[in-house]
Amino acid sequence: MDVINLLKSHRSIRKFKDEPIDEELIQNLIGAGLATATSSNLQGATVIRVRNLEKRAAIAELAGGQTYVETAGAFFVWCADLHRSAVACEMAGGEFSGGMTEHFVIAVSDASLAAQSTVAAAESVGLGICYIGGIRNDPAKMTELLELPDQVFPLFGLCLGWPDQDPALKPRLPMSVTLKEETYVEDNDRDGIAAYDAQMREYYKERTGGKLDRAWSEDMSGLLGKESRPHMRPYLESQGFLTK
Amino acid sequence: MDVINLLKSHRSIRKFKDEPIDEELIQNLIGAGLATATSSNLQGATVIRVRNLEKRAAIAELAGGQTYVETAGAFFVWCADLHRSAVACEMAGGEFSGGMTEHFVIAVSDASLAAQSTVAAAESVGLGICYIGGIRNDPAKMTELLELPDQVFPLFGLCLGWPDQDPALKPRLPMSVTLKEETYVEDNDRDGIAAYDAQMREYYKERTGGKLDRAWSEDMSGLLGKESRPHMRPYLESQGFLTK
Repeated sequence: MDVINLLKSHRSIRKFKDEPIDEELIQNLIGAGLATATSSNLQGATVIRVRNLEKRAAIAELAGGQTYVETAGAFFVWCADLHRSAVACEMAGGEFSGGMTEHFVIAVSDASLAAQSTVAAAESVGLGICYIGGIRNDPAKMTELLELPDQVFPLFGLCLGWPDQDPALKPRLPMSVTLKEETYVEDNDRDGIAAYDAQMREYYKERTGGKLDRAWSEDMSGLLGKESRPHMRPYLESQGFLTK
Repeated sequence: MDVINLLKSHRSIRKFKDEPIDEELIQNLIGAGLATATSSNLQGATVIRVRNLEKRAAIAELAGGQTYVETAGAFFVWCADLHRSAVACEMAGGEFSGGMTEHFVIAVSDASLAAQSTVAAAESVGLGICYIGGIRNDPAKMTELLELPDQVFPLFGLCLGWPDQDPALKPRLPMSVTLKEETYVEDNDRDGIAAYDAQMREYYKERTGGKLDRAWSEDMSGLLGKESRPHMRPYLESQGFLTK
C-alpha cells in the first residue's frame, strides 16, 4: 500500500495481539521519528520508553482507564523538552532564557512532528498505534513517575502493537472546511459542520448498535463548553514553561 | 525505499525545480495529513494554501528572506485552529470556554501531527519539503494577510516542490540522549551533547568549506540564551489563546 493511502486509512488501535515487537524495529521506528524536521534544530522531542508493568498500570489508570497502555507491545511517553537544549546553552556559556512562549511552541511542535513520523513508520510495517493524550489528566503524577526535570513536559503517550481489531475509519471534517485558499474564508463552514454532524451521528450509531446518537458539534460542546484540564497552566508554569 | 528509511533520510529542501505539482496529488497529500490522529477528534488543524505570488513574497520576506516560499511548487500555512470547534460548540448550544492552555496544546499538537503526515506522504512520492517557522517572526502580519479570525494561529508554513538540490543529512543528537528508559536519566547527556557538538562542527565545516566553525550547544546558546520572539505571548493572548 502506498504511503498516501496508508496514512488516509489511519485508525487508532486499542486491542493488541500478545506478540512482541522486534527490538531492532523499535529502535528504527524511534530513529525515524527523531530524524524528523525540527525548528532551528532544537530537537525538542524526548521519548521515554516505559516497560515496567506497574508503572504502565498506573499510567493507564491516570489516563482514565485506558488499559491498552498496559497491553500494547510497547509504550512510550513523548515529552516536549527544553531541558536538554538549556543544558547545551549553558555548556556553551549562554544563560537560558526560560519560560518563553515561543520556545514552548517549538518544543510541543517538535515532539508532535517526531511522534507522527514514528507513527507513519510503525503503520507502514503493519503495527497499530494509539496516542494517549489522557496522560495530561495528571501531568504532575507523570512527572513524578518519569522523574522529569524542569523544562520537560509529558505531551502524550503512544501505544504500539500488532493489531487485534479492525475498526472502521472515523470520518473527518470535509476538506471544504479544513483546507482553505488564500484566506480564512468561513462562509460555508457551518454547512460543512452540519454535514459532518450527520455523518458522525451515523458513525456512532453503527459502532454502538444504535445506542450512541451524537453529533460532532455535541462532542465539541462537551470538550470546549467547559474548562478542560485547568491544572495545565499552573503545572506548565511549575515546570518552567509559559512564564513569559 | 521503505518508509522507515525514507523518514530517516529527511532533509529540508530549499531549492525547487520549476515544475508544477499535480493538483490531485496535492489534494491527496493534504487529505493524508488531515486523516491523522487528533486529540478528542477536535481536528485542530486548518491548512491555508497560498498561491498569490505577492502574498508569498510578503511571507518570504517576513520569514527572514526565505525566498523558497515564493519558488516552491506549493505553499501552505498550517494553523492551530480552535475557532471552528468553538463554532461547532456554539452550534450545539455550548458556551465556548476560551483561552484554556490545554486546548492550545491540543491545537498546536493536532496541526503538527497533521502536517507531518502530509510531509511523510510528500516525501514518499519524491517531493522535497521545508517547514517555515519564520512565519512566527510576525504572526500579526500573517493574521492580517490570511484574514485569520480569533482562535486561529499560524503555526508554520510548508513548502512543497520537486527537489533541485541534494543536501547532506544533518546529524541528530545520539539516541542515547533522546530515547530514555523508564525515567529521565541524564547522567550521560553532557557527554552525548559534547559528541554531537563535535559532529555538528564537522558538518558545518564541510557544508561551508571551513567557514562555519560552530557547535550545536553554541546554536542553542544563540537560540535560548536570549528572548525569542517575545511578541508571541501577547499575540497569542490577543488571538484568544493562553489566557487561562
